[in-house]
Amino acid sequence: MAKLIKNGTIVTAADQYQADILIEGDIITRIGLNLDIEDAEVIDASGRYVFPGGVDPHTHLDMPFGGTVTADNFETGTKAAAFGGTTTIIDFCLTNKGVPLSRSVQTWHDKATGKAVIDYGFHLMIAEMTEDVLAELPIMIKEEGITSLKVFMAYKNVFQADDGTLYRTLIEAKQHGALVMVHAENGDVIEHLIAKALAEGKTEPIYHALTRPSVIEGEATGRAAKLTQLANSQLYVVHVTCQEAVEQIAEARNRGVDVWGETCPQYLLLDQTSLEKDDFEGAKYVWSPPLRARDHQEALWNALKNGQLQTLGSDHCSFNFKGQKELGLGDFSKIPNGGPTIEDRFSILFSEGVKKGRITLNQFVDIVSTRSAKLFGLFPQKGTIAVGCDADIVIFDPNVQRTLSAETHHMNVDYNPFEGMTITGEPVSVLSRGKFVIRDKQFVGSPGAGQFLKRSIYNSAAPGVI
Amino acid sequence: MAKLIKNGTIVTAADQYQADILIEGDIITRIGLNLDIEDAEVIDASGRYVFPGGVDPHTHLDMPFGGTVTADNFETGTKAAAFGGTTTIIDFCLTNKGVPLSRSVQTWHDKATGKAVIDYGFHLMIAEMTEDVLAELPIMIKEEGITSLKVFMAYKNVFQADDGTLYRTLIEAKQHGALVMVHAENGDVIEHLIAKALAEGKTEPIYHALTRPSVIEGEATGRAAKLTQLANSQLYVVHVTCQEAVEQIAEARNRGVDVWGETCPQYLLLDQTSLEKDDFEGAKYVWSPPLRARDHQEALWNALKNGQLQTLGSDHCSFNFKGQKELGLGDFSKIPNGGPTIEDRFSILFSEGVKKGRITLNQFVDIVSTRSAKLFGLFPQKGTIAVGCDADIVIFDPNVQRTLSAETHHMNVDYNPFEGMTITGEPVSVLSRGKFVIRDKQFVGSPGAGQFLKRSIYNSAAPGVI
Amino acid sequence: MAKLIKNGTIVTAADQYQADILIEGDIITRIGLNLDIEDAEVIDASGRYVFPGGVDPHTHLDMPFGGTVTADNFETGTKAAAFGGTTTIIDFCLTNKGVPLSRSVQTWHDKATGKAVIDYGFHLMIAEMTEDVLAELPIMIKEEGITSLKVFMAYKNVFQADDGTLYRTLIEAKQHGALVMVHAENGDVIEHLIAKALAEGKTEPIYHALTRPSVIEGEATGRAAKLTQLANSQLYVVHVTCQEAVEQIAEARNRGVDVWGETCPQYLLLDQTSLEKDDFEGAKYVWSPPLRARDHQEALWNALKNGQLQTLGSDHCSFNFKGQKELGLGDFSKIPNGGPTIEDRFSILFSEGVKKGRITLNQFVDIVSTRSAKLFGLFPQKGTIAVGCDADIVIFDPNVQRTLSAETHHMNVDYNPFEGMTITGEPVSVLSRGKFVIRDKQFVGSPGAGQFLKRSIYNSAAPGVI
Amino acid sequence: MAKLIKNGTIVTAADQYQADILIEGDIITRIGLNLDIEDAEVIDASGRYVFPGGVDPHTHLDMPFGGTVTADNFETGTKAAAFGGTTTIIDFCLTNKGVPLSRSVQTWHDKATGKAVIDYGFHLMIAEMTEDVLAELPIMIKEEGITSLKVFMAYKNVFQADDGTLYRTLIEAKQHGALVMVHAENGDVIEHLIAKALAEGKTEPIYHALTRPSVIEGEATGRAAKLTQLANSQLYVVHVTCQEAVEQIAEARNRGVDVWGETCPQYLLLDQTSLEKDDFEGAKYVWSPPLRARDHQEALWNALKNGQLQTLGSDHCSFNFKGQKELGLGDFSKIPNGGPTIEDRFSILFSEGVKKGRITLNQFVDIVSTRSAKLFGLFPQKGTIAVGCDADIVIFDPNVQRTLSAETHHMNVDYNPFEGMTITGEPVSVLSRGKFVIRDKQFVGSPGAGQFLKRSIYNSAAPGVI
Repeated sequence: MAKLIKNGTIVTAADQYQADILIEGDIITRIGLNLDIEDAEVIDASGRYVFPGGVDPHTHLDMPFGGTVTADNFETGTKAAAFGGTTTIIDFCLTNKGVPLSRSVQTWHDKATGKAVIDYGFHLMIAEMTEDVLAELPIMIKEEGITSLKVFMAYKNVFQADDGTLYRTLIEAKQHGALVMVHAENGDVIEHLIAKALAEGKTEPIYHALTRPSVIEGEATGRAAKLTQLANSQLYVVHVTCQEAVEQIAEARNRGVDVWGETCPQYLLLDQTSLEKDDFEGAKYVWSPPLRARDHQEALWNALKNGQLQTLGSDHCSFNFKGQKELGLGDFSKIPNGGPTIEDRFSILFSEGVKKGRITLNQFVDIVSTRSAKLFGLFPQKGTIAVGCDADIVIFDPNVQRTLSAETHHMNVDYNPFEGMTITGEPVSVLSRGKFVIRDKQFVGSPGAGQFLKRSIYNSAAPGVI
Repeated sequence: MAKLIKNGTIVTAADQYQADILIEGDIITRIGLNLDIEDAEVIDASGRYVFPGGVDPHTHLDMPFGGTVTADNFETGTKAAAFGGTTTIIDFCLTNKGVPLSRSVQTWHDKATGKAVIDYGFHLMIAEMTEDVLAELPIMIKEEGITSLKVFMAYKNVFQADDGTLYRTLIEAKQHGALVMVHAENGDVIEHLIAKALAEGKTEPIYHALTRPSVIEGEATGRAAKLTQLANSQLYVVHVTCQEAVEQIAEARNRGVDVWGETCPQYLLLDQTSLEKDDFEGAKYVWSPPLRARDHQEALWNALKNGQLQTLGSDHCSFNFKGQKELGLGDFSKIPNGGPTIEDRFSILFSEGVKKGRITLNQFVDIVSTRSAKLFGLFPQKGTIAVGCDADIVIFDPNVQRTLSAETHHMNVDYNPFEGMTITGEPVSVLSRGKFVIRDKQFVGSPGAGQFLKRSIYNSAAPGVI
Repeated sequence: MAKLIKNGTIVTAADQYQADILIEGDIITRIGLNLDIEDAEVIDASGRYVFPGGVDPHTHLDMPFGGTVTADNFETGTKAAAFGGTTTIIDFCLTNKGVPLSRSVQTWHDKATGKAVIDYGFHLMIAEMTEDVLAELPIMIKEEGITSLKVFMAYKNVFQADDGTLYRTLIEAKQHGALVMVHAENGDVIEHLIAKALAEGKTEPIYHALTRPSVIEGEATGRAAKLTQLANSQLYVVHVTCQEAVEQIAEARNRGVDVWGETCPQYLLLDQTSLEKDDFEGAKYVWSPPLRARDHQEALWNALKNGQLQTLGSDHCSFNFKGQKELGLGDFSKIPNGGPTIEDRFSILFSEGVKKGRITLNQFVDIVSTRSAKLFGLFPQKGTIAVGCDADIVIFDPNVQRTLSAETHHMNVDYNPFEGMTITGEPVSVLSRGKFVIRDKQFVGSPGAGQFLKRSIYNSAAPGVI
Repeated sequence: MAKLIKNGTIVTAADQYQADILIEGDIITRIGLNLDIEDAEVIDASGRYVFPGGVDPHTHLDMPFGGTVTADNFETGTKAAAFGGTTTIIDFCLTNKGVPLSRSVQTWHDKATGKAVIDYGFHLMIAEMTEDVLAELPIMIKEEGITSLKVFMAYKNVFQADDGTLYRTLIEAKQHGALVMVHAENGDVIEHLIAKALAEGKTEPIYHALTRPSVIEGEATGRAAKLTQLANSQLYVVHVTCQEAVEQIAEARNRGVDVWGETCPQYLLLDQTSLEKDDFEGAKYVWSPPLRARDHQEALWNALKNGQLQTLGSDHCSFNFKGQKELGLGDFSKIPNGGPTIEDRFSILFSEGVKKGRITLNQFVDIVSTRSAKLFGLFPQKGTIAVGCDADIVIFDPNVQRTLSAETHHMNVDYNPFEGMTITGEPVSVLSRGKFVIRDKQFVGSPGAGQFLKRSIYNSAAPGVI
């Protein structure tokens, strides 16, 4: 049966207006004033915003890391995402040197199939640039629809690729139509700083932050941007945390280089002092790059406002405090990196961004949904509310006040980094391809309903847009 | 009778999709797949783009200048605008020291009433900041709907205001909700450079450009941005022409200052060598600021692409070569400044921007229409295609090739600065509030149909967006 | 009788070595190891630095300002300078619109003649650029030896010149060989900020600082630098106080523009909180530009270290707290601007700069003496210790600790802005052209011994150096 | 017998004056007007400049590279240096992984001993940071007087160190008092660019330049500067060639980071088009980093003028065209990198810098001699003309015109990169520690007279100065 969302305020990356939305099957077929359709289920959205479903460009589900595996798999992770207003995720498919890319991708498909409650795509990690990788890459991009490649400039001896690999990835990506993503920190220097700290008996979580200073995130970001300029290619810098990195991105963009930047809610709201919490609780706040001194936050908000950063990823990578984060007791370098953010990303940006006047409603939609859909080849199927698009829709109460907490969240993890924070606004109902996943704040979806998304190639003639 | 635009590709600042548009009265009431409405006039838009009508934020119609009056008045000017795809203009209302603002505004209403074929608003020039002006300003802004104030940093002894006036205008604008616009050139220095050139017998048109170097446009732009920062106010820099000015705007925005920039088609396409044409033809290319060396164009295109410039104004200010531009024979400083661009602004940006891969289709709409509507308090009535908005619509043929020429243009002036240039794309039909103004490339509107637009105040909590 | 300074450590802008100096008449005739000269008076400088006498490029003696006259005239001021290690000053000759420059200069000669105990030159203020001024300028520069011209961008309706005057001064200076000096603050904006503060009843000294924010010093500095670039001329920015101004100077220099910058001891050591002192004592700290927030100091020290600022002027302009500063009781805008610094400039830079490792000994000499001599056409007669140069010499005890205080200083003023500060190092003896002015910390000079210095033209092919 | 240089114009980094110089033994003992010394040999320097001998901070003598050995050894190289006005060189001591530093240093001593005609010191290459290296470093620095360490960021798989090694070298250098030198190019990317060019059959010399673009010199320069900032250490960037690198150095210095930069005569005068010469002659112009597009030269000259670059090294590394450069016939990557510049460095800077008004005479001395002496711990023994210093002196004819040519030069190599260039000025006589090495343009020195210089540690409290 068709669905008719009535009386809501529709908001897209450009528009805001009151109208009714008709959904038939998976898609939106009509938008109008006072639509009156027989045989349609009517959903009243009076007093609500009607947003396109969030697109989270950066998740790590069911991922092995540091001798353990993330607490959320594709079922628990996507459920939590849906509760939070996100209807599409793009998860990182890890690879290993010497293993065919196709096999790694198959592993990732196996993790997701039958579990995901919302649609999903994959990014592909590039660890080396061998003849085999060169041969497989065009297939991955053009046939498998995996149109974004991730290179790590940090995690020496684990994920880290050298600059030659990064440069060649940029060249290949340009040729075949992929967007290159970088984790931008100088891993060589970090390795030494960690070893030195540990040798000096500095083992508490705060040393995680102190051994990854912002200046070398800025350095690596600038380096990646300059290699992109040289390769005449395209770059997306994940999880930007600091002023130095923002400056490098802005500078490259001003010279016409095709560089994009993502930040994450934790960097906008939390700071380095959280790592100093007693009883090893600082471990809950161990991300890489780390939380920064508070004054970096203004640089990040400014960059979202003026367009020098374009997206918000969750970088969701959850580990329980008990049993997982605790692996780093006595050695901060063994604390699994990451935290649970997939659920609160959307509402936090609304509350802290829109409600506090830092960004506009249209910018909110662009940052939390539309821009990622465009950059990663999902637009206009995903990322907007328009006739013909997938009916991925969030009906959002903009006025309810609520408190974030592990007790009420739906992520499969025993803490919430935003515990106790009061925010304004909450998704009430969420539809994925025309079907309710969340209805009146209750989960009504089904594992396996989420589909893998073969994504379009990156359009460098029209970066970020169809 | 309702109108139904069928089978077009609708493009907004965010979206692109195929659907049908239903227009009832002045507004868009429905958008859908395969709409089938009884009693509606069907307009076939197959193979066409359906754009929101252009919003031109910068025109000078029926304006006295240098002992003459612009060649286009509100009738000829708005007709030409409509032919070109523009359905809203904001014209500059000049004022004089000692004369009440209300009287100047009335003068401008008198010029427009009964003549305009499309809707229009006014900007208001501020020449001094007296007690009388202070008293009238809130009325102009909040009752008359004139929510943008223009200050000239050049034209010494004519329009030029000093920095104290600019600063106070910024303060008042912040308080009452207006956006301050500046013509940013250092008039004191220019006055001396002109006098020196003339004293040396340098009287040809090229000396117009040589006596207004780009470094002092950059200087004045940076000065205005810093005063805006100090006043915690909002600024819109009109007709940005050069790299130096772009850098100042970008630098201010990166520091979080609320600064916006406009460029014009002439600065994107033409360069300073045009002023060297024989037989005084260089006079046709006399704008202030002047055309620049060619390499500034890349800086302007880059800035449009990466969002550091946001709008395209025509700065339409037409004078006939014969009898008007000729006033400057033997003395370049007497050449009336300005040129006819209101008609070709829209199509030039499509052809040179979108077709050449410099900007995306969505960016095109944002730059040529949406952003100006948002910045100047006209959104969402104007500037987009969405349910509930005014049906200001351009049905655009994206593939036709044509040659710009004074022989075929509709502006009331004897030359075209882009004479002989071949571009791709042309408005086929144009609607203003649901009525055809241009139909199949023929004028079908009527003088006086255009309405004055009382504009909303500038929303500094959400700059540039509703 | 010849003098022989033995066993000291000679320090110049480039060198540091132990040797003896022979002085015959006014000049240094020999430097050597173990010089043994018959009939020479031997001065033992064991354990002392032997520096060239300080050159203070910025003083205001016997100057009318705000309805009063500075507390120090050429006798008391130059005595205090000599006590402090300064052997040359360049004082600002004020001018008035409509009065011949030559008459103003004669007034200044009358102030100095018969009073000065050390040598001196004049800068010349330019308030307007009339035909008369144009005619007199070459004479002032080339015949009178006044090779530096001062333009005020602040003090609206008092000293302030418009940008046209500044630009024309830059042009004339380039042609005739003078260096243009600017007081860089935006006077138009300041005028409004002061009026607004007073209208709001904000009358205490701190409002002097709050109505002259650093952003408009940066603005004016950048404006002057850009006009200098345009004029292909040369600029010296007096009393730089803040990071914004330093950045503008550095940026211009990096583009090859011939721009130099001076700071003053008060900006290196004191900050804005001093203006909040009780009992109107804040008035003692009223300079224009004002003292800044403390974190600007690091920018100034960095700039001295890396060469983006080159000189230290005292900007000595003393007013008694009693009877003079008190003119501003109840209205901060009536507090005479300036303070007594001519005596402590030299030793403060040694103590805070060299002793604290911020600059080297060679840089100290360059900043406090050599560079000003070079920039203002006094080199090599002044500013160094070399054979053939004037024997202007300071024998300096680098280890003595002492406390600055109005009780012990020699300036004719009832307070010292550095009261109670302990510094390291003190001039023991000071010679001017081979004669002692200070001997063993006692004044032994004579009023009138100081000579007027006709200075060489500015050498733009070799800026700052002979 | 003492020597008396009479009637010359003595020029140092600060001063310029006419006086006579008395030399007794190795050192200068007296400077004075009209010195008249019995039993002294009088050398007439009328009409000549008397400069301190040049200090060349960057030479490669008797160095194996790419399967061959440089054409000049310590005898021919230092002779040529002396002819050119250079009296001190600091040569690069290569090291090999796994070989004790002391053994490499001994190898270098063996190359120099008995051959050098002027004094010399060594820099020490750091290829890895093992426990052995850590243990030897303090000995090398403090006992052997080798107070500068070189790290290569390029030459992948040959000399290149990773960022961890660079960072640790910066840390160790800071602790023990050494200055870290970097060859700043991104070797990883270059390796790929070279492989790609060769794979495409691009084998001519010009591809040497095209595979080492300036953007990655800028990248590596900025990276090294940021690591220096993080390590709170000190950095000297060798052979800076381009605007991008200059900007990175200036930016770091403006933030207070202790970074210094050297350029070379080839980058000031020659450009990339030289590599396109016919008959493989382009190979003569193969340096790394490569010659750049001509417009980078202005950035380099500006940086020397405003102090953002401080020294001029020759980077002398000579290979014969016949038999050596020809190793790269058919494969540009096999062309030995480097060229013969040790002889002309000094005179080229005088002619192109001073005579053309780009820098002052004092700056010339600072750049070509004094600053390197100060930065590398040789001052005041070397680098200036002052009482007590080594009598390393150049008597220079500033007016003679001459043409550079392999036919007349004294380097042991069959071409001169400046062949045919006419310059102004020539060393007439050169003294090293008081003895003539060159007298009236004839060599009168003796191999082995040059002594190894144990250098002082880098003084970070007073960088670049005693």
